Amino acid sequence: MNNEVGMRSRKKMTLVDTDVHHTFKSKSDLFPYLSKFNAERFAEWGFGIQVGYYAFNGGRAGRRADLVDEKNPTPGEFVFSGASAYDVEDTRKRLLDGNGVDLALLTGSGIGPLASAMTDLDYASALCRAFNDFSLEHWISKDPRFRLALHINSQDPAGAVAEIDRLGSHPAVCAIMLGCGAPRPFGHRFYHPIYEACVRNGLAVAMHFGAEGVGTNPPPSAAGFSSYYIENRLMRPSFYSVNVVSFVFEGVFEKFPSLKIGMLEGGFAWLAPLLWRMDLDWKGLRRQTPWVKKRPSQYVKEHIRFATQPMEEPEDPNALKQIIDWIGGPRMLMFSSDYPHWDWDDPKMILGDFPEEFRRRIFSETAIDTFGLTLPSMSEAA
Amino acid sequence: MNNEVGMRSRKKMTLVDTDVHHTFKSKSDLFPYLSKFNAERFAEWGFGIQVGYYAFNGGRAGRRADLVDEKNPTPGEFVFSGASAYDVEDTRKRLLDGNGVDLALLTGSGIGPLASAMTDLDYASALCRAFNDFSLEHWISKDPRFRLALHINSQDPAGAVAEIDRLGSHPAVCAIMLGCGAPRPFGHRFYHPIYEACVRNGLAVAMHFGAEGVGTNPPPSAAGFSSYYIENRLMRPSFYSVNVVSFVFEGVFEKFPSLKIGMLEGGFAWLAPLLWRMDLDWKGLRRQTPWVKKRPSQYVKEHIRFATQPMEEPEDPNALKQIIDWIGGPRMLMFSSDYPHWDWDDPKMILGDFPEEFRRRIFSETAIDTFGLTLPSMSEAA
Repeated sequence: MNNEVGMRSRKKMTLVDTDVHHTFKSKSDLFPYLSKFNAERFAEWGFGIQVGYYAFNGGRAGRRADLVDEKNPTPGEFVFSGASAYDVEDTRKRLLDGNGVDLALLTGSGIGPLASAMTDLDYASALCRAFNDFSLEHWISKDPRFRLALHINSQDPAGAVAEIDRLGSHPAVCAIMLGCGAPRPFGHRFYHPIYEACVRNGLAVAMHFGAEGVGTNPPPSAAGFSSYYIENRLMRPSFYSVNVVSFVFEGVFEKFPSLKIGMLEGGFAWLAPLLWRMDLDWKGLRRQTPWVKKRPSQYVKEHIRFATQPMEEPEDPNALKQIIDWIGGPRMLMFSSDYPHWDWDDPKMILGDFPEEFRRRIFSETAIDTFGLTLPSMSEAA
Repeated sequence: MNNEVGMRSRKKMTLVDTDVHHTFKSKSDLFPYLSKFNAERFAEWGFGIQVGYYAFNGGRAGRRADLVDEKNPTPGEFVFSGASAYDVEDTRKRLLDGNGVDLALLTGSGIGPLASAMTDLDYASALCRAFNDFSLEHWISKDPRFRLALHINSQDPAGAVAEIDRLGSHPAVCAIMLGCGAPRPFGHRFYHPIYEACVRNGLAVAMHFGAEGVGTNPPPSAAGFSSYYIENRLMRPSFYSVNVVSFVFEGVFEKFPSLKIGMLEGGFAWLAPLLWRMDLDWKGLRRQTPWVKKRPSQYVKEHIRFATQPMEEPEDPNALKQIIDWIGGPRMLMFSSDYPHWDWDDPKMILGDFPEEFRRRIFSETAIDTFGLTLPSMSEAA
């Protein structure tokens, strides 16, 4: 890739980062937003479900090694926090200022997806509420460039709807977070009240892997649990594709025509063969799902967008262009860094040899459209 | 596609069909090969596990409608049998003679993969043995063009090894059948005695979806059960890819350097992005699996082959050639018809506009290499 071209043209290019992992440093950071009973439970028992058997086998506890120093240690207390950003000033300086990020979608560190895998629905929903309140007070209020994806308990649709209606009108809230793993795929009618609330509040859906095979969720694959982190990582496309397929064939987009979905950190090259296969199979089988009125790929191209990180790196230098063309062009993709995880994508390093219009789509326009974003300068002018 | 070219050149082209579904017509066909106790159990209880909630939503009970007539009814008694071929003379005439098939790998109708999802290991292994004996007596002995993939109970490695050693030296037996769904992925060391027995008997491994989410197997995805047949069908790449990844990263091919695996009815376009991602992730993460000494894609290219059916049909006519090139060329692919299922691929209809050398690889050479096949005419000459 030609980094010089990338660096020169980025000076005038808006940059939206759609996957920035923020978290709390200590459990006690959430206590002010929890009842005494729940705060004690959280202090003593945490989530109460296992996480981390697919430990991040890279960086320092999953975090970029260059971001770990004496002032910014890796907290051992909490695996998912440890890999994420817990210092707002440091994040403003290193990520936003350091990379010229105009807007950053804060996606948390798996709180909502993990809470959704708990047995106690009310405790789980309370943790989501606490994390949202913490995020608004300690992150969103600190910089006009931050945006928030609300954490909700997807297995408690009524609780999720209440949370979406409680905070969905906040100007910095632009989406909800869903995990990929769940007892049932996310197109299922069980979840439709959640999407109705999203539409009512003008929110998109952001989907991120992380809680597959955890808590009440089924194992991560039809063949159960793989042994190693790299294997689980390589299965990510399946975590997303089952939900892409479910959204389409359960008729979610016929029912909620304005709903937009952003799929984060799952790559996108796998989408091309899936789109071909969806259209082909639909021709032969559509009588079972007559509410799917258009070609399935059409729904995907209208409603679902994919974040770029971790960027595909095929051997054939033309492969990426070819794949992006097959899935519908750069309008399907939006940049994400995955800051501060060890395998983050540096905006100065990716897509350097793509044309400017192409890069503008991916670095800002798709995300702005998908999440209904307004740039800080634009809102200040208004 | 240019069918005329295809029809002309096929006259001199050897044709190997790597996925032909044969079965028994009535449960009583298996009684002679079962103990009295097991025969009674099979008569009264069948498999005792649920199948068919993702019913074949095509053809007549999943079977090509043109193959169903008064003489060849669709037996309602047994869903998996109903879709498969139960009349050996009819199959010889319609499939072998009718399409100029030189060799047909009989893959059964899911008996082994389903038996592997039962709780009673001995009963399950007994059903596999009975089906193998039935297949040898009533199919293999009837035509020198038939070859057999042995059905084994993958969750009873000792029982599977005994069955492989019992029948593995039969000249028509060239592989074992594995399902894709299982309590643990198929690269796991739990299964290594099975691969050791395969190598000892010169057998390949054939892998076929069908028992995902059935019996003791986990749900078919990290998000549980999809609602509709088309969704389950679209998830097939994930059923195979978790096992591709498992074979490579558990070091199966380092341990069994001569083992060959044929993946049937899962397509192949999804493999290209997986190979890229495997190599990329391995560069950053290989310290956890140091026994993976070569680039992961290299193991796949040396050991795993993919059957063509159901053939991909991208909109872009060049896409198929491009994808096949990315995965390693036509030496990675072998023709399969999936006879007599409703969505079978007619050898007269596919790949007609590909060059002759390319088609020869796919229509016979890859399968001959993978399964160590000898053509009937060649063995007669020997």
